[in-house]
Amino acid sequence: MTQLLNEIRRNPLLWLLALVPVVFAVQMLKPAAHTLLFVLSVLAIVPLAALLSHATESVAAKTGDAVGGLLNATLGNLTELVIALAALRAGEYMLVKASIAGAIVTNTLFMLGASFLLGGLKHHVQEYNRAGARLQAGLVFLAAVALLIPSAVSRADSAEEAAFTQTLSLGLAVLLIAAYALGMLFSLNTHRELFASAESGEAGEAPWPMGLALATLAGVTVLVALVSEVFVESVQKAAEAFGMTPAFVGFIVVALVGGAAEMASAFSAARKNRLDLSVGIALGSASQIALFVAPVLVLVSYLIGPMPMDLQFWPGAVVMILIATLTASFVTNSGRSAWFIGVFLLMVYLIFAMTLYLLPPRSQ
Amino acid sequence: MTQLLNEIRRNPLLWLLALVPVVFAVQMLKPAAHTLLFVLSVLAIVPLAALLSHATESVAAKTGDAVGGLLNATLGNLTELVIALAALRAGEYMLVKASIAGAIVTNTLFMLGASFLLGGLKHHVQEYNRAGARLQAGLVFLAAVALLIPSAVSRADSAEEAAFTQTLSLGLAVLLIAAYALGMLFSLNTHRELFASAESGEAGEAPWPMGLALATLAGVTVLVALVSEVFVESVQKAAEAFGMTPAFVGFIVVALVGGAAEMASAFSAARKNRLDLSVGIALGSASQIALFVAPVLVLVSYLIGPMPMDLQFWPGAVVMILIATLTASFVTNSGRSAWFIGVFLLMVYLIFAMTLYLLPPRSQ
Amino acid sequence: MTQLLNEIRRNPLLWLLALVPVVFAVQMLKPAAHTLLFVLSVLAIVPLAALLSHATESVAAKTGDAVGGLLNATLGNLTELVIALAALRAGEYMLVKASIAGAIVTNTLFMLGASFLLGGLKHHVQEYNRAGARLQAGLVFLAAVALLIPSAVSRADSAEEAAFTQTLSLGLAVLLIAAYALGMLFSLNTHRELFASAESGEAGEAPWPMGLALATLAGVTVLVALVSEVFVESVQKAAEAFGMTPAFVGFIVVALVGGAAEMASAFSAARKNRLDLSVGIALGSASQIALFVAPVLVLVSYLIGPMPMDLQFWPGAVVMILIATLTASFVTNSGRSAWFIGVFLLMVYLIFAMTLYLLPPRSQ
Repeated sequence: MTQLLNEIRRNPLLWLLALVPVVFAVQMLKPAAHTLLFVLSVLAIVPLAALLSHATESVAAKTGDAVGGLLNATLGNLTELVIALAALRAGEYMLVKASIAGAIVTNTLFMLGASFLLGGLKHHVQEYNRAGARLQAGLVFLAAVALLIPSAVSRADSAEEAAFTQTLSLGLAVLLIAAYALGMLFSLNTHRELFASAESGEAGEAPWPMGLALATLAGVTVLVALVSEVFVESVQKAAEAFGMTPAFVGFIVVALVGGAAEMASAFSAARKNRLDLSVGIALGSASQIALFVAPVLVLVSYLIGPMPMDLQFWPGAVVMILIATLTASFVTNSGRSAWFIGVFLLMVYLIFAMTLYLLPPRSQ
Repeated sequence: MTQLLNEIRRNPLLWLLALVPVVFAVQMLKPAAHTLLFVLSVLAIVPLAALLSHATESVAAKTGDAVGGLLNATLGNLTELVIALAALRAGEYMLVKASIAGAIVTNTLFMLGASFLLGGLKHHVQEYNRAGARLQAGLVFLAAVALLIPSAVSRADSAEEAAFTQTLSLGLAVLLIAAYALGMLFSLNTHRELFASAESGEAGEAPWPMGLALATLAGVTVLVALVSEVFVESVQKAAEAFGMTPAFVGFIVVALVGGAAEMASAFSAARKNRLDLSVGIALGSASQIALFVAPVLVLVSYLIGPMPMDLQFWPGAVVMILIATLTASFVTNSGRSAWFIGVFLLMVYLIFAMTLYLLPPRSQ
Repeated sequence: MTQLLNEIRRNPLLWLLALVPVVFAVQMLKPAAHTLLFVLSVLAIVPLAALLSHATESVAAKTGDAVGGLLNATLGNLTELVIALAALRAGEYMLVKASIAGAIVTNTLFMLGASFLLGGLKHHVQEYNRAGARLQAGLVFLAAVALLIPSAVSRADSAEEAAFTQTLSLGLAVLLIAAYALGMLFSLNTHRELFASAESGEAGEAPWPMGLALATLAGVTVLVALVSEVFVESVQKAAEAFGMTPAFVGFIVVALVGGAAEMASAFSAARKNRLDLSVGIALGSASQIALFVAPVLVLVSYLIGPMPMDLQFWPGAVVMILIATLTASFVTNSGRSAWFIGVFLLMVYLIFAMTLYLLPPRSQ
């Protein structure tokens, strides 16, 4: 605990933690101040993300980068899962799907791209284990195929169609979860030696002891989830005030803030030349959302939703996921990175973001 | 001949050969017993496939894996060609196209995936010559482009359009056959050293003498063709009895049974760590169907069909062929295989199969 | 100057230079003789292209292949730019877009493919630096995404839509130019060592002195631009006389003749086993048209056009650009070439060309 307080004293960024109780106070007292709540919740997520990053690195230092990346992706995606469950209970299926698709695209392009760029600005060329990147990109590709094929193969648009989509979504959800589980078995158990870290990396600061790290991970994750909920409630109204389209908010803003914690970890690892950890967080998070969070939401919707959710996404979202996967596969093929690779991924992301930002509301 | 009888005595699977005359007898006596004929013909194809596999391996042992793979693909596809010619004479163009597309997808995803999985369950990591895999995947990609471009480029839907499609199909058929011939020239003649087998493989059983192997190849191929014809006649009716959609039958069931012989060879080679042979059979068969069988059927339709056949496929089929090719290119890029690579390919195949199985009949 | 005259005396091809003044004379005297002007201008471009090729090689000999390739691509694309500006001033936006898309596809498939084929017929296997090929293919992929996403994401077809497309095109144009500039910074400055030539190449003829080479480059470029303008004016009418569709003329004929100069350089370099230069010219030219010429035309259309031009291309063109990029990425992945790789690229190009040639005019 003293160590945690020392850390807070040393790092001025963490003083923003004081905003966490302020967020909850303002929400209790002025629940209609959407723009204020939006700004406060974004500012409060930043220091929480930084703490989470440090805690994850301390755990990863003891478990190896592959397990550390999985751990980080899982904890980071808890936030997404919590948000999506709230929306699911309210029957807001469009928001759930937009935030899932947005999270996949943002993790694959923005988080990976910014990691490569930030790492590349400090290190001339960085190496990483491409086996892990290829596996995760392959898994996201599998999910993209599962989202694409039903609409590519079917021609009808009828009541029969709806039943078809529903049954198929259930089957595909089970399939994707099975693929994810087998992928984990493969990369963490039977063939773990293929996914060992390539680089040495810098030693970094002294890691926290395991107990403190795990306790911080747990506590901060809960706080992130609570603040995120405030953020999601306020974001739609605040976005209107800022003149953003709903598509842009669901795809870009929610995904960027929802992934802030993981991004802090991924960027910091890239700067320390531990690119395997960055790639593991970014693509691991994308594949986990695509093959675990999304299918679980379909299954859970049978229990808690007003009606079952299917896996039929907006065609534009499917195209964006497919392009993001192809780009990530193309880019990670060599296992080497430099600053321009990051720019390249960010440019693809910017094309998406710019299109969504300008999209006329009626055509979404 | 004694050697062949010895083989049959040793291997209980081959006792099913007794069903081959039973199939013909039932067809003569009870041509309307579709479900019985379906079950009998599937059971009769299994031992024939096993014999074919052993004979091909004996020939391949003397010719090298590249030529052996080509030989195997050609003999295996004779079945598909015989079936398709029968359907062509009857003017059943939808069935011909569905079985072509299904065979390409099944060979690329199921045969390759199951080979990788079966090989990977026995061997930790398997190496193979990726040059051959890349060439065959590239050829199938070429065929997919030829199927995709006409519909992507054209906007009209008129009588003019029909004439355009017909002439274009003829031109593309000639182009694909030329590409296939040049690809053979490249891989078997001018640059054969690039396609030499990478692995050592196990010695396997003592190969048959060349004469016996060739005679068995010829005789069994004829029997497979005859039994396959019974199978195709009965499958549609039997499928209805089992509640399968026509799309599922054409794409999946016909392709799986039609390729049983090649699959037996490919799987057995994978278990013996001769993955080059497996990859050669699976992708070689896919490229041969796409660039040789399909174009030849277009040309032959001018001679024996009630009207010319074109190369305009159902859009869903083109998307599946394209995705199958991209997946195979992605997966074979490294020249290494492990069990999960097989699972990955099979998962993509399962997504296709599940979608087709659930597809409401009217929307196909 | 004596050196230039000696060159002309030695090389009978260059005697065709005499046709350059003839072209201008016929245009003055008989501006309606379209078919004659078409034939004359094509014949006059050939020797100019040959001269340009020799001059570029002389400069490249002193600057290294990466800079030489950039230089060549820029000078070669000056022609395209000049032609497009003339069409822009006349408000012929369909022609501008068709020639841009055609130039990207022709450079990526035909110029690269013919280089690989011509080089491969002389050399068994050729190596080249795949880093450069991957960078350029990646840039063209980025442009393809920028052309694809707006239409994939948007659903409407209204006045609102038009404003959306216009603003988005402006934003994407700036984005693409920025990506191109950063790509240049990366490959020519910060990471130039990654893009160094792999092969040794033949010494070739003695290069011209720098002054003569630069003067020839400048003078011949101007002549090519002037003759090209005659060519463009005559090509549509001549094409009708030869029975070609407008789509085929815009995409294939204009692109082939417009790129004749660069092709001469690329083919000659491939024969001399300097494949890095060939790949640099072909893919560098494609990426420059996609990320520099096209966006600049959008920006310039605000100044000189009757109305602003957008980046919304014909869907068939976007599909062809996307397939061309995927093919080039797939093919250049290994950094090795042989004759069949060239055939493969040419076959994809032939599929496009054949489809466009047969396309009924109303459905374009």
